Amino acid sequence: MAAPTKITGLTIEDLRFPTSLQKDGSDAMHKAPDYSCPYVILSTDTDLRGCGTTFTLGKGNAIVCMAIDNFKSLVVGQNLQDIFNDFSGFWRSLASEDQIRWLGPEKGVTHLAIAAIINAVWDLWAKMEGKPLWKLLADMSPEMLVSTIDFRHMGDTLTKKEALEILKKGQVGKAEREAEVVANGYPAYTTSCGWLGYSDEKIKRLATEALSQGMCRFKMKVGGDVKDDARRAKMFREIIGYDRPLMMDANQKWEVDEAIDWMKQLAEYKPLWIEEPTNPDDILGHAAIAEALNPLGIGVATGEHCQNRIMFKQFLKAKAMQYCQIDATRVGGVNENLAIILLAAKFGVPVCPHAGGVALCELVQHYSMFDFICVSGTMENRMIEFADHLHEHMSEPVVIRNGSYQVPKSPGFVVGITDKAREDYIYPEGKEWQRLFSEGLFTKPE
Amino acid sequence: MAAPTKITGLTIEDLRFPTSLQKDGSDAMHKAPDYSCPYVILSTDTDLRGCGTTFTLGKGNAIVCMAIDNFKSLVVGQNLQDIFNDFSGFWRSLASEDQIRWLGPEKGVTHLAIAAIINAVWDLWAKMEGKPLWKLLADMSPEMLVSTIDFRHMGDTLTKKEALEILKKGQVGKAEREAEVVANGYPAYTTSCGWLGYSDEKIKRLATEALSQGMCRFKMKVGGDVKDDARRAKMFREIIGYDRPLMMDANQKWEVDEAIDWMKQLAEYKPLWIEEPTNPDDILGHAAIAEALNPLGIGVATGEHCQNRIMFKQFLKAKAMQYCQIDATRVGGVNENLAIILLAAKFGVPVCPHAGGVALCELVQHYSMFDFICVSGTMENRMIEFADHLHEHMSEPVVIRNGSYQVPKSPGFVVGITDKAREDYIYPEGKEWQRLFSEGLFTKPE
Repeated sequence: MAAPTKITGLTIEDLRFPTSLQKDGSDAMHKAPDYSCPYVILSTDTDLRGCGTTFTLGKGNAIVCMAIDNFKSLVVGQNLQDIFNDFSGFWRSLASEDQIRWLGPEKGVTHLAIAAIINAVWDLWAKMEGKPLWKLLADMSPEMLVSTIDFRHMGDTLTKKEALEILKKGQVGKAEREAEVVANGYPAYTTSCGWLGYSDEKIKRLATEALSQGMCRFKMKVGGDVKDDARRAKMFREIIGYDRPLMMDANQKWEVDEAIDWMKQLAEYKPLWIEEPTNPDDILGHAAIAEALNPLGIGVATGEHCQNRIMFKQFLKAKAMQYCQIDATRVGGVNENLAIILLAAKFGVPVCPHAGGVALCELVQHYSMFDFICVSGTMENRMIEFADHLHEHMSEPVVIRNGSYQVPKSPGFVVGITDKAREDYIYPEGKEWQRLFSEGLFTKPE
Repeated sequence: MAAPTKITGLTIEDLRFPTSLQKDGSDAMHKAPDYSCPYVILSTDTDLRGCGTTFTLGKGNAIVCMAIDNFKSLVVGQNLQDIFNDFSGFWRSLASEDQIRWLGPEKGVTHLAIAAIINAVWDLWAKMEGKPLWKLLADMSPEMLVSTIDFRHMGDTLTKKEALEILKKGQVGKAEREAEVVANGYPAYTTSCGWLGYSDEKIKRLATEALSQGMCRFKMKVGGDVKDDARRAKMFREIIGYDRPLMMDANQKWEVDEAIDWMKQLAEYKPLWIEEPTNPDDILGHAAIAEALNPLGIGVATGEHCQNRIMFKQFLKAKAMQYCQIDATRVGGVNENLAIILLAAKFGVPVCPHAGGVALCELVQHYSMFDFICVSGTMENRMIEFADHLHEHMSEPVVIRNGSYQVPKSPGFVVGITDKAREDYIYPEGKEWQRLFSEGLFTKPE
């Protein structure tokens, strides 16, 4: 098949999954999310298509779809080689569009929209090269990689030159590391056992099951009630022991002082990190929490709500983040995540991606594998979140073996969501939604 | 007329003004904005209506309209006294809605949407009390004022108790200050002479005119070319002299080091502040710029893109902001701006609101007047931005006399946009837009 030369169309589907029925994804701030995604398909002058998603909790998914549509005229008609030759320029043409940037800039709805589009372009590129994204990135020259990054407003912390140096250093031993990750995969941790809405029985059953399948890193949600958290932490430790890492996630619940007090009370259960202890915008607050908790061996982890590279830059500079939790769709897609991975490398902070949601596991694994092969060169203290839902709807679901993500082999990045899932869960007309409306489990929108 | 008891409806209009034709509003980052606003009308069980706006640069106005619509079910049907009795609770029910908050949280499109709704509720409240907003606020007890504020994630910096103390101190001498501002108004500065797209001739003519009308504080845009900025600054100083304040605004154009170098070259023109020198999210970057420029007598001003009280909290704490430029619609409306005004008071930083756009002058004047009467108690180093466009479309346009905003007298906050403007500029069906499409000055949307 001839290679496509330009983007000829962009369609958007509003896909939503009724996860609130099972309380999957419940935490201290989000009681009943319906995991959803705007699904972007870029068509080309050949049969090849690029797919992109972003992630939302249900309501508002249509807003992001509309925001994506708002960028359409900047995308459709573009020559693909022109994009690849100056990807940072293309990225900026979206992220800094003259009128739209006011709505952010580079944050919230418009940035989620850009993530879906940009990731679809990368999916297309990877498919054109016949490689999974991690491999496309790993094979790229340092010069080509930095050419995709918009370094604006990063000059005080990471210049293009420094980024290039980090990547050049990462070329040494690349082939061996690639062979290693292909053979053994990349460490995962699971969030699926510890949702706040789950009963003790369910937690015990799921954690025991996960252990027996070789999973050996666990995260639990905290922040409802400190005594209840202590009880649940004790239960976790009784099941998994003290040699395996246990992480805790407060989902932004606390004030700064409250976070410190609360975690001091949970310190005996040896959490590796406390995730999102307070408002995700509060760099100085996170820094204060980190300063108080680091002596107890507890790091601060955050990133899933961190809106862009400028915020990551500051979190890292202020020692407010000991674990850098990049998200596949919160920031402006691959280009911006490359910038953040390089920032984390500069500060020696491990990248431990946030995942779960819809397709996030499928996406972030590529980043960690690339990080290992070409940037940090190590898996020490690093792992990828795993949450066990909605994978059945992915064309190429993640493969977890012995507690590790196995390298994806299919060409592409987002790869795709199955045709059946798209038919069933497109909102509100999909078959499953029609059933849920008719059974009275959800209210039909006006 | 009996007082309304509940909100019975919420309508949204997509109003856009073709300001790009005149290059009004052009700056280093926004070459051709079309000033626009989603316009919210809350209806009640009486004839009384509350109006609310938020501000955008054109494209994307419909996205904010859709986001407003997404909150509709949380607003329509609500009892007004219940809202007023627990306004912080109502505010949080929007800002932290379980599923929608993922799209922010508390930033970007969803927060702009909340601003329009919240401001419409305040407009309604002020109209019910028969007072302009500044007077409604000035007459409110400190206890009632703090009851409207969501203090979540502010506990490390400003507690409810401290806020109450600041407001109680502000009660002393209140009547005298009210009389003073009613008699003399509140100092304004003008941005209308110094847009980046204006010719030298136009700048000279406008500045001379403004001076002759009693305006004595000026702001110019910078960031295109340093030599050109120096030439234009010299021209400004030749017209206005060195006794009147001149401010500079870079609209986020620079890197941190570049901002410092550039402003050192412009220091001889004695700018009072440099506004938005770099990325608006870069607290630590602004702090570095402030540290370098404060010894030269140049302060750092920012706020119009500052997404919420958590960011303002950090800017103030980090000494990154010597002038606090609250915006009427960027954060979540009156309730959150009260929090920010109190934070600024705690740090002794003057509040100098951002204005211009659509209706922003009409809105922010209330904040400064309230700040003077009840919080800071002084106008020293304080002024309100004034930009001279689109006032003709306001039902109650601002009145500037002797370079000062005169206190608005009509009951309400947003008060309203004229019926004629709503008919002419509703997008895309309005009469003016139809004319612009038919004359080929704008392209009709698909």
